Amino acid sequence: MAERVLVINPNSDRGCSAGICDALAPLRMAGGPAVDVATLAEGPDGIYTNRQVAFVVEPLMRLIEAERARTDAFVIACYSDPGLEAAREAFPGLPVFGIRESSVAVALARGDRFGMIAAVDSSLRRHRKWMQASGFGPRLAASEASGLSIAALAADPAGCRPRLVEIGKRLVAGGADVIITACAGMSPYRALLEQECGVAVVDPVQAAGMLALGAARLAAAARQEAGAKAAE
Amino acid sequence: MAERVLVINPNSDRGCSAGICDALAPLRMAGGPAVDVATLAEGPDGIYTNRQVAFVVEPLMRLIEAERARTDAFVIACYSDPGLEAAREAFPGLPVFGIRESSVAVALARGDRFGMIAAVDSSLRRHRKWMQASGFGPRLAASEASGLSIAALAADPAGCRPRLVEIGKRLVAGGADVIITACAGMSPYRALLEQECGVAVVDPVQAAGMLALGAARLAAAARQEAGAKAAE
Amino acid sequence: MAERVLVINPNSDRGCSAGICDALAPLRMAGGPAVDVATLAEGPDGIYTNRQVAFVVEPLMRLIEAERARTDAFVIACYSDPGLEAAREAFPGLPVFGIRESSVAVALARGDRFGMIAAVDSSLRRHRKWMQASGFGPRLAASEASGLSIAALAADPAGCRPRLVEIGKRLVAGGADVIITACAGMSPYRALLEQECGVAVVDPVQAAGMLALGAARLAAAARQEAGAKAAE
Amino acid sequence: MAERVLVINPNSDRGCSAGICDALAPLRMAGGPAVDVATLAEGPDGIYTNRQVAFVVEPLMRLIEAERARTDAFVIACYSDPGLEAAREAFPGLPVFGIRESSVAVALARGDRFGMIAAVDSSLRRHRKWMQASGFGPRLAASEASGLSIAALAADPAGCRPRLVEIGKRLVAGGADVIITACAGMSPYRALLEQECGVAVVDPVQAAGMLALGAARLAAAARQEAGAKAAE
Amino acid sequence: MAERVLVINPNSDRGCSAGICDALAPLRMAGGPAVDVATLAEGPDGIYTNRQVAFVVEPLMRLIEAERARTDAFVIACYSDPGLEAAREAFPGLPVFGIRESSVAVALARGDRFGMIAAVDSSLRRHRKWMQASGFGPRLAASEASGLSIAALAADPAGCRPRLVEIGKRLVAGGADVIITACAGMSPYRALLEQECGVAVVDPVQAAGMLALGAARLAAAARQEAGAKAAE
Amino acid sequence: MAERVLVINPNSDRGCSAGICDALAPLRMAGGPAVDVATLAEGPDGIYTNRQVAFVVEPLMRLIEAERARTDAFVIACYSDPGLEAAREAFPGLPVFGIRESSVAVALARGDRFGMIAAVDSSLRRHRKWMQASGFGPRLAASEASGLSIAALAADPAGCRPRLVEIGKRLVAGGADVIITACAGMSPYRALLEQECGVAVVDPVQAAGMLALGAARLAAAARQEAGAKAAE
Repeated sequence: MAERVLVINPNSDRGCSAGICDALAPLRMAGGPAVDVATLAEGPDGIYTNRQVAFVVEPLMRLIEAERARTDAFVIACYSDPGLEAAREAFPGLPVFGIRESSVAVALARGDRFGMIAAVDSSLRRHRKWMQASGFGPRLAASEASGLSIAALAADPAGCRPRLVEIGKRLVAGGADVIITACAGMSPYRALLEQECGVAVVDPVQAAGMLALGAARLAAAARQEAGAKAAE
Repeated sequence: MAERVLVINPNSDRGCSAGICDALAPLRMAGGPAVDVATLAEGPDGIYTNRQVAFVVEPLMRLIEAERARTDAFVIACYSDPGLEAAREAFPGLPVFGIRESSVAVALARGDRFGMIAAVDSSLRRHRKWMQASGFGPRLAASEASGLSIAALAADPAGCRPRLVEIGKRLVAGGADVIITACAGMSPYRALLEQECGVAVVDPVQAAGMLALGAARLAAAARQEAGAKAAE
Repeated sequence: MAERVLVINPNSDRGCSAGICDALAPLRMAGGPAVDVATLAEGPDGIYTNRQVAFVVEPLMRLIEAERARTDAFVIACYSDPGLEAAREAFPGLPVFGIRESSVAVALARGDRFGMIAAVDSSLRRHRKWMQASGFGPRLAASEASGLSIAALAADPAGCRPRLVEIGKRLVAGGADVIITACAGMSPYRALLEQECGVAVVDPVQAAGMLALGAARLAAAARQEAGAKAAE
Repeated sequence: MAERVLVINPNSDRGCSAGICDALAPLRMAGGPAVDVATLAEGPDGIYTNRQVAFVVEPLMRLIEAERARTDAFVIACYSDPGLEAAREAFPGLPVFGIRESSVAVALARGDRFGMIAAVDSSLRRHRKWMQASGFGPRLAASEASGLSIAALAADPAGCRPRLVEIGKRLVAGGADVIITACAGMSPYRALLEQECGVAVVDPVQAAGMLALGAARLAAAARQEAGAKAAE
Repeated sequence: MAERVLVINPNSDRGCSAGICDALAPLRMAGGPAVDVATLAEGPDGIYTNRQVAFVVEPLMRLIEAERARTDAFVIACYSDPGLEAAREAFPGLPVFGIRESSVAVALARGDRFGMIAAVDSSLRRHRKWMQASGFGPRLAASEASGLSIAALAADPAGCRPRLVEIGKRLVAGGADVIITACAGMSPYRALLEQECGVAVVDPVQAAGMLALGAARLAAAARQEAGAKAAE
Repeated sequence: MAERVLVINPNSDRGCSAGICDALAPLRMAGGPAVDVATLAEGPDGIYTNRQVAFVVEPLMRLIEAERARTDAFVIACYSDPGLEAAREAFPGLPVFGIRESSVAVALARGDRFGMIAAVDSSLRRHRKWMQASGFGPRLAASEASGLSIAALAADPAGCRPRLVEIGKRLVAGGADVIITACAGMSPYRALLEQECGVAVVDPVQAAGMLALGAARLAAAARQEAGAKAAE
């Protein structure tokens, strides 16, 4: 089986999927797994409520079931990590990553405390609740909502850049050694933020992508090793 | 600058370095960063005490200083993560990973609770203390010392395999969704343990390696992006 | 509006609904709210997996929407509390209770630490995870799976009683001041367990029922007070 | 035995007892337990210091001893919960509720995080310390002292209402999903606060009252069940 | 004022006071504060229940009030620390130490995790609850009840020694770097336990005594310094 | 062996050592241990970075090895507690105290929550991280950097006093019951701060000094006791 990572956008917004695809570009390497993106057609335009998070689980599970024979690792690319536990429960042994969980994992391997930029206050509250529930509360130094919509981030970089840098610097002043950009549409700003704020900046799609890539490579290597043993 | 990850073995045991190098093989891809291994000549044979952990910091810092101009990301490949905070403090912005911190990060992106296999009880105690201090205490489900030396792991796979599988199954029964092999010399057993125990098994050198590889690729992509912008 | 509490069984098993109805009997008082039970027809026979928990959210929400004009407080009567956050988010101000959350709340108002009896190990793990995530980890003294199915609990009380009492006593020896019977079908055993084990025993359906009853009575009193004010 | 809940005011202020009695009105239902109020004659006018909290324990214990033969459940109606542990230790099996502990329990069954309004800063500090000690620290979103005395709350509703609503809104902005009115004399303001602030508001006397009512009803039902069995 | 530490035994057992006095012997130095012991005549024979803990607060407060003009620091010598918060609240600025709180403080300045030997299980539970409430839960490695009464400890050292050493070794095996002898009558065994178990052993009366001695010396030095300044 | 406590200044600044020596004056008592101060000649001028903390461990260990035959207890007098774990690991049974760890222990035996004054923000961050890692996070009420250098503290008391009092009062307003002066050069201000702020003020050198003094006295008493037994 050719090595493959499949990153699923659980909302049906293809523009969002394009942004996800672009963010993954640095992780596509010759000799490495294919890193594909799929859009969940049955999903809503955007996932903002708990009701929507529950709604996408069933179609997401069916998509994973359909693709799993030819995929080494999956990424669920919505910051609410919908269906993550359902997928791990239903498919033991299959590597499945959620971008929120992965973003915090990667941040904690870069520094002591992290800061988070979300889009709006309601998202911030939901994500902070998850972080507290997952035991990461004391590691979250500061967080702030940008108030910038995905549309604005795409259409007006010149206007958005200074605002994001200003927030990033406030998070650093509040104790963050690492920043997580916890909202869609911020991937193109990662490198700039890192340079301007002087700390590592973690993009959740890239975080999950590198972990999935690692899992896929290890799975492929294990298959080769087993194949070699069988041949002996 | 060609992309490069440098993995440093802070003890002077070249056999240990060879094992580290082998563990990193799946992460070397044609289109990806070079993944090199260096041995700290000034280091002791093995690092077991707090005194030794402190001792290697100064030579480790000098090696990083010497290599940093041509390296995108460093990994400190000793499970006590010696010098990790000193390096981050001295070289802001430089990606430095410790294999203990990275192993837990990657484990937490694979499942809810993890188990740990260490070599001896004194190591177990030291690592459990770090996990509690880092806020991961509730996420550590179970841990056990194998009593298997690096020499035995290298020389007697047939004898070591059943013992490690037995411990792994006990950790799973104790609530672990993921297992970390927290001791040198266990890398060749990772895939087997994963197959026999039915849960993901994380090798710390590979965990830090994939995170460093991701950081190196993102740094390279940022350099290209900046170069393209300058050319405009 | 006549005062009313509606307790929803999100699985479609009417025998389970009958048990829930019986458990609520002590909370039906002549001068108090009606305490009704509804069965979610679209639900599966039983809810055991995360996938099923997500699946019932949409039909549950539609049922609450349909009933809310004539209901003062809702109870979701499945120990996984499916849809609890979705309902609170969608219907701000509407009192909605989950039996798991309510069982722990009531237990914590009876003593210092509680013990939990669940049906099977997988349930135990899921509930213990929720308790840790909710900050109740240190208050959970001990837990155990009974291995008794809902069918057995209904059909063979003489056989089940000694087993449950034995487990209850073990939980008390393990530090529990209060016991929660965290599985369907155990309501008829509550009073006996309390007598034999010497500590308070909390039935989740009854816990949520008494909280919902209180919320409904306060809502009715507030309506009367506002009505009286308007009449002045 | 007729069902009965006895709510004890451990201070000797009969005006305070009257307020407690009024707050309990919605919980008196035909077919339900009597909900009586007793005043501890030996108690001080008010309980503000740790010395006073200790002082009332002995007379409180004697009152419970005297009343227990004809009472199903007790409530200690002072927000410092004096004598709660002593009573549970001395009378195993007897349901005893403290209004502070009960208020937090009920709040946690209504939402994710709660806010607290106390009278003065010294009370706030003492209650926050208890919440941290009980493991509820992360669930307490915000708290504030009103500076309103019991006398003012009773005599000047027109002046107190806007101030309490202003504080309540600040607590909600600070992350509270539920508000606890943690001071005597605030019961008459509960419904208004709930309406103006848009979140559930928990009155501690009512919280303990509904839990005690539930415990009393379950005890009565258990007696009936045992009586019916004996008659067989 | 001559420097003085007053250690109060809140129970009326003079044999217990004699033991306390003996334990303090190493802290009496020619050039240091007097270290006196007082017995609370109004106290019960022994303090085992929450009711008794509350009961001694009032007479304890009166004794402190009577002695404070001629005392630099007080110690409350009962492992339940009765009246500690009441005394600090009533006498701001006056150094008051509780032997339980002090024993944990001193233990945490000697090693990473501590073990506790108490007399009986009910004491163990009460003390473990306090440790969890005070945030020391993760630092408590192990604890055990000796089952040895104060009378037995006094009368039969030959029989008690091996049992205490056996328990101490179990605590060390369970992860304790330091042991606290959390019960009256164990002071004469401290040095032996330390020698046999190989870890520091903390006697609570001595722990509080050395802290009180330090506070008294600093207060005396401050008085001298102020007196010298005034004389200038 | 004459009783002796040795306090080691791990930096080579003799002025700093003189200040340490002065701070220990109240703990030198006739009949008590000698309290000596040594300066680590190989140490840097000041210890501000993790690299420097690691650097001093080896020479510190050699000094302890050289002095241990004639010393009952050691104190490491740098607020980063360099080498504390290494020394305890290398010399089991030898009492070694770190001034940071000791300052928090003593503070927690004086009140519920403490505040910390450090010199600069980077120190503040490092110490807060240690406190969180050690489980003391919830007990730290507030902290602030004074911005006052050791030179300024020594040369300009009239200017420094009001600034320190102002910070101390802010910490008390922020919930601190006790204040720790977590930086060198502040010892001469302790008594004044205590008087002006109305709460206990803990100097770390004095805190460790009194604990070391207690350990030394107990060791001496144990030697006498063993000597007396041998003589029988």
